[in-house]
Amino acid sequence: MKIICYKDKLMKALNSVVKGVASKTTMPILEGILIQTNDNEIKLTTYDLEIGIEYVMECDVLEQGSTVVNAIMFSEIIRKLPDTEIKITLNANNLLEIECEGSLYKLATMNPEEFPELPKIEIENSIEIDQNVLKNMIRRTIFAASTEESRPIFTGCLFEIENNKLSLVAVDGFRLALRKVFLTKQSKDFSAVIPGKTLIELNKILTDSFEPIKIGVAKNQALFEMDNCKIVTRILDGEFLNYKNVIPNTWETRIKVNKNNIQDSFERISLISSSSVEKEKKYPVKVQVDIGKVTILCTNQTGEAKEELYVSTEGKNLEVGFNPKYFLDSLKAIDDEKVYIEFGSSISPCLIKSVENNDYVYMILPIRLKED
Amino acid sequence: MKIICYKDKLMKALNSVVKGVASKTTMPILEGILIQTNDNEIKLTTYDLEIGIEYVMECDVLEQGSTVVNAIMFSEIIRKLPDTEIKITLNANNLLEIECEGSLYKLATMNPEEFPELPKIEIENSIEIDQNVLKNMIRRTIFAASTEESRPIFTGCLFEIENNKLSLVAVDGFRLALRKVFLTKQSKDFSAVIPGKTLIELNKILTDSFEPIKIGVAKNQALFEMDNCKIVTRILDGEFLNYKNVIPNTWETRIKVNKNNIQDSFERISLISSSSVEKEKKYPVKVQVDIGKVTILCTNQTGEAKEELYVSTEGKNLEVGFNPKYFLDSLKAIDDEKVYIEFGSSISPCLIKSVENNDYVYMILPIRLKED
Repeated sequence: MKIICYKDKLMKALNSVVKGVASKTTMPILEGILIQTNDNEIKLTTYDLEIGIEYVMECDVLEQGSTVVNAIMFSEIIRKLPDTEIKITLNANNLLEIECEGSLYKLATMNPEEFPELPKIEIENSIEIDQNVLKNMIRRTIFAASTEESRPIFTGCLFEIENNKLSLVAVDGFRLALRKVFLTKQSKDFSAVIPGKTLIELNKILTDSFEPIKIGVAKNQALFEMDNCKIVTRILDGEFLNYKNVIPNTWETRIKVNKNNIQDSFERISLISSSSVEKEKKYPVKVQVDIGKVTILCTNQTGEAKEELYVSTEGKNLEVGFNPKYFLDSLKAIDDEKVYIEFGSSISPCLIKSVENNDYVYMILPIRLKED
Repeated sequence: MKIICYKDKLMKALNSVVKGVASKTTMPILEGILIQTNDNEIKLTTYDLEIGIEYVMECDVLEQGSTVVNAIMFSEIIRKLPDTEIKITLNANNLLEIECEGSLYKLATMNPEEFPELPKIEIENSIEIDQNVLKNMIRRTIFAASTEESRPIFTGCLFEIENNKLSLVAVDGFRLALRKVFLTKQSKDFSAVIPGKTLIELNKILTDSFEPIKIGVAKNQALFEMDNCKIVTRILDGEFLNYKNVIPNTWETRIKVNKNNIQDSFERISLISSSSVEKEKKYPVKVQVDIGKVTILCTNQTGEAKEELYVSTEGKNLEVGFNPKYFLDSLKAIDDEKVYIEFGSSISPCLIKSVENNDYVYMILPIRLKED
């Protein structure tokens, strides 16, 4: 194998595929990148047995061949080379020679035949969406996914296509995040739960551009296809929460509030609520709605905090306890200037919604206040 | 105590003094800030029994008084308040009330009489220097100070004033960093070893401005005085290395090299030299000087690396082993485009020097190569 390519182009490819390299593994081959030539292209592949990433790029192929080299070592060396042509050769001793100006590196390689094959996927359903749209939807829901492996299905994010709308839903038992977007092309209804870990890596690869990404789903696998890059992932098995049934569609108390103002209040008050000397104890904040005013309160050994905001209110007065972190996470995922916050009783979940459309719902379960 | 002040001004003061707060202590009072009013000023003090920081600022004092409040909690709350006036009151229950628009925080306080007194200092000698100059000198030497407590004197940095020149010297047994600057005002000769920890915190407070800082030295203490801010620190006891005797003043081989080029070469080759599977083993790089050329080589289980640079050489050919990290640290501390690197024999230290002046010397001890 002998190729010549430009540093920046190769680095772009490596930045994408290294996201799929296994980090803690007893199988060194999974820490490798499979490099394969094909006419005037090379294909770079990484696969940690959950997420597989393939990247195809054109380059000058002088001799066909394939090899596996440690991904981190290879990409760090390429990253530090000058911005110019690089010659990469698999020599007779099976060392990968990297030549660039005065630098010559020879890296140990592994047998490409030992590299695990990526699953073959027969796409049953697919949609297309702009990369920046998907990137934002993932970023704004994934934080609500569970990190506990005891119920694996909730460590993923539901992708649901229904009536030409894509919904992303993440839930961890204490809160729920839902984002919706209309699809521009006609699509069949289908759904799949994609592992959170895949989405986090995918989001590092997605650009902020209007370039399309195709999301295809097969029986046990999903495929994300971009220009040069393909990501294969397993789908999580099991029954996801029937989320439509748990989101209340009535409220007893509703406030309309400047998103940044209430976010700032929650940020300050979390300093007190999370500062408890008894780390184990949870100190919820108390949210109190009176006519024209919302007050957030917290008291513990560190001190007392009170945040007052003058807002427009509808419905009953109310007192309810919350973990301020859940409010903050949701508010940070919203760009709007104003939001509705809807409450039921002091034991009902609370919803944060757009004033203008149905693009999102964030649901937060209350915490029982100590004096209850 | 009751004061009114602006958020940005108070935050600037807090950013300086929190650097002096004890981080791991069983004495909660050392995690506090002492706040004392004095006419129309407040003085903020932190002291971890090694470094004491005082900051004086004007503000609206409505009631004189003093208190101690947890430094991190207080400064985090102030940081998150809106950019406007803040009213701070010590109430009848000894809670510190912080009021700002709709926010009201009440923090537990401690008895100001329990706050340890900063040592009184009778300055014997002092110099004045621009803050940006001192900041750069510290940054460019402190990395060479030892982090091992077995020989405490070398965890500090020597400040030596001689013939109106200030020299900063740090040394850890493997390398030495020396920076010199002329003082604009006539000064008496003196010297002191300042703890590295103090200098690291001081450097976070120093600005990149031409504002002056006064460095005063007493028997056991040193004092750094800026506009609003004073830092008191203990001086390290003991005999510092007689550094002038250990820096060679002749060479057998000398190269003149583009600083960035050789730095890049060392950065790439460290990827190989530090990647050994046997983490315990040190893999030095071999530096080889031939007429018109310097080659850096490293071989271990990961692979082989060779970096060639065409440079101007003087004197004998040479082969010598080094820890590339020490070269990198020193090269990163240099701004010049070209540097001299001077070698003696393969067991003599190597020096990196300016081509143009005597502002700095970085000395690195060699490592015996395996084949020796």
